[in-house]
Amino acid sequence: MEDTVRIIPLGGVGEVGKNMIAIEYANEILIADCGLAFPEDDMLGVDLLIPDITYLRQSRKPVVGYVISHGHEDHIGGLAYILREINAPVYATPLTRGLIEVKLREARLLDKTDLRTFQDGDVVHVGGFTVEPFRVTHSIPDAVGLAITCGAGTVVYTGDFKFDPTPVDARTSNYARIGQIGERGVLVLLSDCVHAETEGHTPSEQVVTDTFRRIFGRTEGRIIIATFASLIARIQQAITVAEEHGRKVAVVGRSLENNVAMATELGYLRFRPGTMVSFRELERESPENQVVIVTGSQGEPTSVLNRIANQDHRSVKLREGDTVIISATPIPGNETAVSRIINNLFRQGANVVYSAIERVHVSGHASADEQRLMLNMMKPTYAVPIHGEMRHLVRYRQIAMSVGVPEENIVIPENGAVMEFGPDGASIVERTPNNFVFVDGVSVGDVDHVVLRDRQLLSQDGMLLVVVSIDRQSGKLVAGPDLISRGFLYGAEEARITDDARALVRRAFKHDGDSPAEWSWAHRKLKHTLGQFMYERTGRRPMILPVVMEV
Amino acid sequence: MEDTVRIIPLGGVGEVGKNMIAIEYANEILIADCGLAFPEDDMLGVDLLIPDITYLRQSRKPVVGYVISHGHEDHIGGLAYILREINAPVYATPLTRGLIEVKLREARLLDKTDLRTFQDGDVVHVGGFTVEPFRVTHSIPDAVGLAITCGAGTVVYTGDFKFDPTPVDARTSNYARIGQIGERGVLVLLSDCVHAETEGHTPSEQVVTDTFRRIFGRTEGRIIIATFASLIARIQQAITVAEEHGRKVAVVGRSLENNVAMATELGYLRFRPGTMVSFRELERESPENQVVIVTGSQGEPTSVLNRIANQDHRSVKLREGDTVIISATPIPGNETAVSRIINNLFRQGANVVYSAIERVHVSGHASADEQRLMLNMMKPTYAVPIHGEMRHLVRYRQIAMSVGVPEENIVIPENGAVMEFGPDGASIVERTPNNFVFVDGVSVGDVDHVVLRDRQLLSQDGMLLVVVSIDRQSGKLVAGPDLISRGFLYGAEEARITDDARALVRRAFKHDGDSPAEWSWAHRKLKHTLGQFMYERTGRRPMILPVVMEV
Repeated sequence: MEDTVRIIPLGGVGEVGKNMIAIEYANEILIADCGLAFPEDDMLGVDLLIPDITYLRQSRKPVVGYVISHGHEDHIGGLAYILREINAPVYATPLTRGLIEVKLREARLLDKTDLRTFQDGDVVHVGGFTVEPFRVTHSIPDAVGLAITCGAGTVVYTGDFKFDPTPVDARTSNYARIGQIGERGVLVLLSDCVHAETEGHTPSEQVVTDTFRRIFGRTEGRIIIATFASLIARIQQAITVAEEHGRKVAVVGRSLENNVAMATELGYLRFRPGTMVSFRELERESPENQVVIVTGSQGEPTSVLNRIANQDHRSVKLREGDTVIISATPIPGNETAVSRIINNLFRQGANVVYSAIERVHVSGHASADEQRLMLNMMKPTYAVPIHGEMRHLVRYRQIAMSVGVPEENIVIPENGAVMEFGPDGASIVERTPNNFVFVDGVSVGDVDHVVLRDRQLLSQDGMLLVVVSIDRQSGKLVAGPDLISRGFLYGAEEARITDDARALVRRAFKHDGDSPAEWSWAHRKLKHTLGQFMYERTGRRPMILPVVMEV
Repeated sequence: MEDTVRIIPLGGVGEVGKNMIAIEYANEILIADCGLAFPEDDMLGVDLLIPDITYLRQSRKPVVGYVISHGHEDHIGGLAYILREINAPVYATPLTRGLIEVKLREARLLDKTDLRTFQDGDVVHVGGFTVEPFRVTHSIPDAVGLAITCGAGTVVYTGDFKFDPTPVDARTSNYARIGQIGERGVLVLLSDCVHAETEGHTPSEQVVTDTFRRIFGRTEGRIIIATFASLIARIQQAITVAEEHGRKVAVVGRSLENNVAMATELGYLRFRPGTMVSFRELERESPENQVVIVTGSQGEPTSVLNRIANQDHRSVKLREGDTVIISATPIPGNETAVSRIINNLFRQGANVVYSAIERVHVSGHASADEQRLMLNMMKPTYAVPIHGEMRHLVRYRQIAMSVGVPEENIVIPENGAVMEFGPDGASIVERTPNNFVFVDGVSVGDVDHVVLRDRQLLSQDGMLLVVVSIDRQSGKLVAGPDLISRGFLYGAEEARITDDARALVRRAFKHDGDSPAEWSWAHRKLKHTLGQFMYERTGRRPMILPVVMEV
């Protein structure tokens, strides 16, 4: 029996192991989570990113299953892409399974997938791995961590977690089970570390319920609440407080409607008959009896909230006296987009409540003291922070050391790097390709860094197209140059500068007398001459595209 | 004598009146501040923005002077552009004047400008206006608010301010003067409101000194501090604490070096002989005696800190054991850039201290209770929030109402909108053009929204160039089509799709039999045919640029 286990984080933009982790023992691979990521600012035009599975493709070992921690997009969204290539049973808790089914139905993969349910307290065998899900609290119900045991020992993957003493569904983390797993012995703890920069404890979701009660109590008009479609707990909080104040609730937005229908069916959303109505029915109530829940808390361009803010939504029109609650904190990179929405809502006379002024959101992730609690209960030999950027990983190392994990037993992971754990210690034994796969339009993986670099260049100073016809024999200009610019020159400037540029090109081709034309020579000459000229005149460097026709 | 005064905010991206405010009484205009702004995310390739002075150009009234509140870029940076067109005396306190001189020297405008010094406590006459600067605390020394009196009454412009009880230079706001001005009667208070979302008081700069002491006390290696070049107070704090710990200090970066030299000469930076050395001299000290101050706390691509983080700086190389303090909070929109730098510094083994984990920065702006204090002391008839986005303006209105300013006496300003104040009340009487002027490379105002929209399109899905030669008589294709794409297609996809597209174009031109060629017909045909084809095949919509050569 082998005594080492290998762990390979396979997804994350900037963050490590955020979306997918491979656990390899003997001749088998088990996958923990399979999510997708959203592009960073400079990935121009990219819609979303799925993990790079080169490692799995190149490995001869079979994937025996996917075990899923919870139902958020960054943990389940990759399945619709990756199951097409690597099909294996998918294990999830009931709500998570419901959310996966919604995705796979859209992708027409539901029939082809072997979906299985597991629950807190179960012990399931996936290939040679024994998997024990244990309940943790997060901003979605039915989240679990996973204790994965193989011949080398137990690897614990926390998933996203915090220790909320008063969660919305009153189901706290399974402390007893966590304690048992820790007592039995944990070789490696893979821990969510994204909120490690905050000291102390993350506030309970209960705090948000209290804020909702305060806002509902002082508000007479209609209330619109924006949040993530998958934040089922937040939706429950809104419904509960709405009922306390005699308001009815409608949800608007396709993903939200799907998720609410599914969560209701599975019993994860509780409300009295008559509370949930369609938006059309809601409109018949007086404003003080209305609550509308919409998506768009991150400023997404096509979201319901953004369309409301821009007075562009088909049915939901903002009215004087409306109160809009943005129940989320902008994810880094989204601040400006969210701020624009807030400004636009204010401009239309709405009262806007957002996280900078009231506690309408709390993080779903553990702060430093909760990390310490998890470490103290699990007592792992090795600790590995995941789901964070370098700054969070380093911070987690300090936290782990503060509760006695020796520095050499803490591994800072990298995407694509193969970590090996066993009796001889822990180390990175191999680095494998790990570039995210870009999804742009209908293409998967057909957009690469060259394309992105070109978009970046084009977005800075635009482009200049120059078309000439030259005589094949003499190398002389017979037609053109024609100059076409986009995103570069404007109005008055354009006429002035392109006239001079045309004259310059004509001179450049005249000086060289009779010499046989060579396409690449003319090409280089145009690029160089115009590049220099344009930089001198405008201080800008457009992408220059010469088109040389030989006649 | 006229009894109304007009106030027109002239600059700000998203924010109102952030960079320049015109105050018009009888036949004269006085300008308060003249700064520049930095582009938002979607202003692709734009370097900076200067206020639109269309209003001043169209007015027949002369500008009698510029009165400047403090020396930050967003309050003085526009002078180097706008003085060329509208020359008038510029009044500033000594440090602010020194910073303006640095800018005007670079712009070769120093000889042509009538620079005058005023100080806290002075009463100066600028045209028919009486201007009284009064000291306020901010994150730069020598900041003043301005009480501007004309026949209609007194307009108070706070500039950027907070009420710091223990400022770095020990010179608190001039409470007595503020009280006097308030007692005499204030018609309009124009108040900085950008930090109005925070309740209570902004912490004193002293808190940062305390944090520096704590960090210096526990650190053995070299310390690198990144901050804004104009944050003179922060530089003083770093120098003071360095001296306490027997360290020498070097500054690296042109703008920082200029500002430090000037502030030292004017007596705004105090240190013992031998403390400030060149970087070369500093390198001779052992690491525990070194402090390096650099620019780049906002993640600016060409800043010293970013070059250090990317191992690309000529002289400053990161070493194991270095501690980097980022003494600033990312301005909205810069979070991702700053986070990348933090990650890169950690990756190279540095210890990084930043605002998320320790108090190495405090805001230079007033929180809600400081706003209330200013309102209580000034007791204005009308209150106008400036320097904020809509969300801040609305928040300030709530604050002003909480201390008894009637709602109808609070005006929410707009850039370019002419506000009129007098015995008959306050109102917006006119809206004038106010688009920012983009500076891109060496061009001022030559980049407009069409150019930006093109850059936006190019950055999303790139471009596709199609070149054909058609017979002038028959309209038939005689050469091409040649297809060139940038930022659109990649590798394998490119070959496959462009082959099909070429065949498609050939077919499109064949079907039409003999018909006289018309350039615009061929142009439209190419654009339509290829646009549709590419969207079907890739889900993307590149900018399509047809080049039609008639032969």
